[in-house]
Amino acid sequence: MTIRVGVYGATGYTGLELVRLLTAHPAVTVAFATSETSAGQNLRQSWPQAPDLPLISAAAAPLDDVDAVLLCLPHTRSAPIAAQALARGVRVVDLSADLRLDDPAVYAQWYGIAHPAPELLPMPYGLPELGRDRLRGARAIANPGCYATSVLLALAPLARARVLVPGAPLIVDAKSGTSGAGRTPKQHILFAEVHGNFSPYSIGRAHRHLAEIEQVLAGEDATLGPVIFSPHLLPTDRGILSTVYAPVTDMAAAQEAFAACYAGEPLIDLLPPGELATLAHVVRTPRAALSLTSASDGLLIIVSVIDNLLKGAASQAVQNLNLMFDLPEIAGLLPVSA
Amino acid sequence: MTIRVGVYGATGYTGLELVRLLTAHPAVTVAFATSETSAGQNLRQSWPQAPDLPLISAAAAPLDDVDAVLLCLPHTRSAPIAAQALARGVRVVDLSADLRLDDPAVYAQWYGIAHPAPELLPMPYGLPELGRDRLRGARAIANPGCYATSVLLALAPLARARVLVPGAPLIVDAKSGTSGAGRTPKQHILFAEVHGNFSPYSIGRAHRHLAEIEQVLAGEDATLGPVIFSPHLLPTDRGILSTVYAPVTDMAAAQEAFAACYAGEPLIDLLPPGELATLAHVVRTPRAALSLTSASDGLLIIVSVIDNLLKGAASQAVQNLNLMFDLPEIAGLLPVSA
Amino acid sequence: MTIRVGVYGATGYTGLELVRLLTAHPAVTVAFATSETSAGQNLRQSWPQAPDLPLISAAAAPLDDVDAVLLCLPHTRSAPIAAQALARGVRVVDLSADLRLDDPAVYAQWYGIAHPAPELLPMPYGLPELGRDRLRGARAIANPGCYATSVLLALAPLARARVLVPGAPLIVDAKSGTSGAGRTPKQHILFAEVHGNFSPYSIGRAHRHLAEIEQVLAGEDATLGPVIFSPHLLPTDRGILSTVYAPVTDMAAAQEAFAACYAGEPLIDLLPPGELATLAHVVRTPRAALSLTSASDGLLIIVSVIDNLLKGAASQAVQNLNLMFDLPEIAGLLPVSA
Amino acid sequence: MTIRVGVYGATGYTGLELVRLLTAHPAVTVAFATSETSAGQNLRQSWPQAPDLPLISAAAAPLDDVDAVLLCLPHTRSAPIAAQALARGVRVVDLSADLRLDDPAVYAQWYGIAHPAPELLPMPYGLPELGRDRLRGARAIANPGCYATSVLLALAPLARARVLVPGAPLIVDAKSGTSGAGRTPKQHILFAEVHGNFSPYSIGRAHRHLAEIEQVLAGEDATLGPVIFSPHLLPTDRGILSTVYAPVTDMAAAQEAFAACYAGEPLIDLLPPGELATLAHVVRTPRAALSLTSASDGLLIIVSVIDNLLKGAASQAVQNLNLMFDLPEIAGLLPVSA
Repeated sequence: MTIRVGVYGATGYTGLELVRLLTAHPAVTVAFATSETSAGQNLRQSWPQAPDLPLISAAAAPLDDVDAVLLCLPHTRSAPIAAQALARGVRVVDLSADLRLDDPAVYAQWYGIAHPAPELLPMPYGLPELGRDRLRGARAIANPGCYATSVLLALAPLARARVLVPGAPLIVDAKSGTSGAGRTPKQHILFAEVHGNFSPYSIGRAHRHLAEIEQVLAGEDATLGPVIFSPHLLPTDRGILSTVYAPVTDMAAAQEAFAACYAGEPLIDLLPPGELATLAHVVRTPRAALSLTSASDGLLIIVSVIDNLLKGAASQAVQNLNLMFDLPEIAGLLPVSA
Repeated sequence: MTIRVGVYGATGYTGLELVRLLTAHPAVTVAFATSETSAGQNLRQSWPQAPDLPLISAAAAPLDDVDAVLLCLPHTRSAPIAAQALARGVRVVDLSADLRLDDPAVYAQWYGIAHPAPELLPMPYGLPELGRDRLRGARAIANPGCYATSVLLALAPLARARVLVPGAPLIVDAKSGTSGAGRTPKQHILFAEVHGNFSPYSIGRAHRHLAEIEQVLAGEDATLGPVIFSPHLLPTDRGILSTVYAPVTDMAAAQEAFAACYAGEPLIDLLPPGELATLAHVVRTPRAALSLTSASDGLLIIVSVIDNLLKGAASQAVQNLNLMFDLPEIAGLLPVSA
Repeated sequence: MTIRVGVYGATGYTGLELVRLLTAHPAVTVAFATSETSAGQNLRQSWPQAPDLPLISAAAAPLDDVDAVLLCLPHTRSAPIAAQALARGVRVVDLSADLRLDDPAVYAQWYGIAHPAPELLPMPYGLPELGRDRLRGARAIANPGCYATSVLLALAPLARARVLVPGAPLIVDAKSGTSGAGRTPKQHILFAEVHGNFSPYSIGRAHRHLAEIEQVLAGEDATLGPVIFSPHLLPTDRGILSTVYAPVTDMAAAQEAFAACYAGEPLIDLLPPGELATLAHVVRTPRAALSLTSASDGLLIIVSVIDNLLKGAASQAVQNLNLMFDLPEIAGLLPVSA
Repeated sequence: MTIRVGVYGATGYTGLELVRLLTAHPAVTVAFATSETSAGQNLRQSWPQAPDLPLISAAAAPLDDVDAVLLCLPHTRSAPIAAQALARGVRVVDLSADLRLDDPAVYAQWYGIAHPAPELLPMPYGLPELGRDRLRGARAIANPGCYATSVLLALAPLARARVLVPGAPLIVDAKSGTSGAGRTPKQHILFAEVHGNFSPYSIGRAHRHLAEIEQVLAGEDATLGPVIFSPHLLPTDRGILSTVYAPVTDMAAAQEAFAACYAGEPLIDLLPPGELATLAHVVRTPRAALSLTSASDGLLIIVSVIDNLLKGAASQAVQNLNLMFDLPEIAGLLPVSA
């Protein structure tokens, strides 16, 4: 079987990674790729190592020719295309924020604009390691945010095991490479601004990924305190490292919760005691790595790392596409044993 | 008046900065500079922009020819030279860890070795903005650690104002450029290891600077909870950014504590609301910058930044030297108005 | 005496450096600074370490209030303001390309547009170490291009000494940090594009600085062959290193030409044999450094380094301003001895 | 068929890449890997993304258990092990310099020491795109140097086509990431030394790779002038870009020489006119990319890029291993079509 897919927004960093993965995927054919700024060009002109692929505008995309579309578009521009595709029977993996929040009112609150297609909500949230039943065979999947993936992998096992101190703040100090800010030129991500610098932004209760993080955690444990989320911009191109400070009621149970949650997961590396997770564990791979450090009887420090463009976006989208079409979840990401 | 000084350990990163500052200082003459590995060479051979200065071994240093020495030596090697200098009536600014802890037993616990000169302890702790009376005219001063400086500037005003929640953990997520690890070649600080990477180390309750941080904070408020300290290695050469999560009993009083503590301080920039401190605020300057963000009613996030080699080491040593000799504290660091 | 100056285009990388130098200059007061994009803001909002300075639009600049203006503007926008200033008796240091070429036809050829103020040409070319007589007391000076400065410092002594092989190509392989490309956001200078990359551009006979390089060299020796100029974009923020391959008729005379040309120059470091010039010799200083390596009897390799924003732009402009007003040439750049 | 191999020197940068490629190679099994400094540990302790592989000392390596060995050892330590392996009928790909030069006297001249196993010389030089007949079924192959690969790919087609100007110097301005300097800690490759810096070294006629470059070129055209070779250290981890200035007798024939030489080569990308080769074309791939720019009638500029650890070392070794065992040359590097 070959699944025919279209990729919207192929010339951004996530789009480029996604096309690269999909063109090498043994069961997928990329039927088209869109770009509004580069329609008429070849993807190679956007990236020296890109596959040879013509770019068309979204308006010209032959939706009837594909089984699924993957949307690497800005929020508000993504949901209308998702709706259009679903109406034609084409499945959707949406990498934007548009389908992640169950409640359009929450979307309006965080994104400052009415949801462009509220009738689509809620959609299954595509973080397979936290629950893949709802993803198998799904018509559409909301691909998680990059920061949200790294934080949820660190906190969801604890929430599920009910070992977090009720009501206590969950402090997340997160750091991301600059590709997370996208490929559209902006002054603060120029090389000469970032080189030699390191800077926090939107710290405390301000970053939009808080909404999806708290939505998922609340689904596991309704007694949790607020997440305090402090992102920082790293002078590197890719990777997210989140240092998570979790007040726990039972340290042994907390550590066991990770082993229980991630046993047998091919894309999660739970590091042995004494080894701390670093970006070098995961950059350019579809994996996450997690390390656990007991700082005191009641405080567990989880370091959670992913490649923001892969497990934080493109490779997780491939996991979701695979689940959608009942393929091995890691097809196109790791060698699949017979 | 010209103060004649000797610098021990001039070819490390801190030593180089210190010599650079002292040779440009209007009231100081560098009489000698030592290096065990480069004795017989000129400092220019260690660093293209260094001043023209011959290097001698510590054993050959003419102690009788100077008014003060500044020690950029590894711990355990520093205190014996401090003792020797003091015995000859030469004043000492010690940039190593040897004179920072009041209690030799605490030193033995954190450094794993008996203190080399316990009779020298306690010494005044040279963080002028937290108290400069004990530093004026002092015979010897313990220059603070780089991480300790950034953390204490963020937490001491709160401790002094008694607005920290008693017993609650004080979470410090710190990030440092690689010059903090010194100039002796080690694999983990090779360019090809650090480029594209970001890595935590010694997180929780493991880093040696915890001892001096808690010693100073306990002197301000005996009810404080433990400091949880998580350092990370940044892919940049210099700068420390500490993101400090402080549970406070009174948010307004907490914010006022900083204004009260740092009013009129020429080297502390308390940033206006809405502006977050970044490394770019301070690298290659003798300044610290601090920003305050209220994350919730009870949690204040302080971002504290310094250049680890300057306010975290060399320029703070110059402040201390100035205080010792009753010079304007910022002489040699900022223009001194008439 | 205090010279009152205005800086046009203060929020670009060159403008920021220039304002920083001029505000610390003992004989200069910055009366105004312009920015079209940030008029109404303070320069501090553009750069954390900037001096406190309000920004106005060029149209609102009080030309009658200043003795001189320094123009950090794009080409074609600079010359009209230069003309306007000169008409009012205000002196001009122009850091754009507009006043560098003697012949408006050559300008039109390289810049693809008619010269905006041909009546101003020719202007004295402000590379003081190659001739400062024409600069002393000048009404206007054309500040050289950054690449041109590094190349001319390497080749002009040889041309002047008539030791270059007539007609032979002069190969220049140059490398620049990204601040040379300006602060206006463009995709190819985003951090995630430059990090881990290194790329040539406009190589051979394509780069605009060729025009001013060849104009100056031809003024020294009319028999020279073409300059082959290959710039590359370095993954660093600042600095230019030009590796220059010069076929010479007499190796000993060639090496002596440098000693003769730069004897006593306070801002030129001619390195001793065996030491090669690197960016670390000059970044964040107003200096150039040069090293000479004999590759064979007839081929001299000159490595020439500068900080593109300083000796390649802002600090050279200060040299020119000082010459213009008969101040010590290094005032505001190095300590001036009494 | 499965080829059993041993890798000597597995914990250096080249060794790590080689093990990574070989463990994923469909026809190869890594039977053992050696490291003197890390014997007894697992390769994972050397590199977070390494395969799970125990490390032994070279003395303990079971040579009788393998079909071939790949040697990532320092020069002088490699040849004796090559001799030992060959004596037991085990084939050898030597990634050191020991087997590259035909004449032991030339080796002694450049490496300053007598050749450790002159009876092995000459060996076939393993740059497949310049001649793979001598490599098919070979008992031993000398894997080229990284710089040499990038330079020879640029100059050999011209030498073979006899279009280089006889006797004229061939100027090569080369730039390499720091992994080319190895993983043994040295001060000049510390992160804080390289960050923000760019530096030439061993320029002119001093670098050891000149010997193998000129040996190969002389085999193609005995009339050539000297190669002038100027390497520079780039602030990035991997990749080599060589900018080559070739005086040619016939520009059209020169450009056709590349098309003729590399037609159908799966690992050589000859870029279309107007596109310049950059590190981004090749890093983390087994490919080389070349761009041609005519600077004048008689001067062709070739930009040649490779990943120093892959086409410059490990992936080229895999090409050579494949040729040795009559496998598809790109097996384990690119998908092999049926």
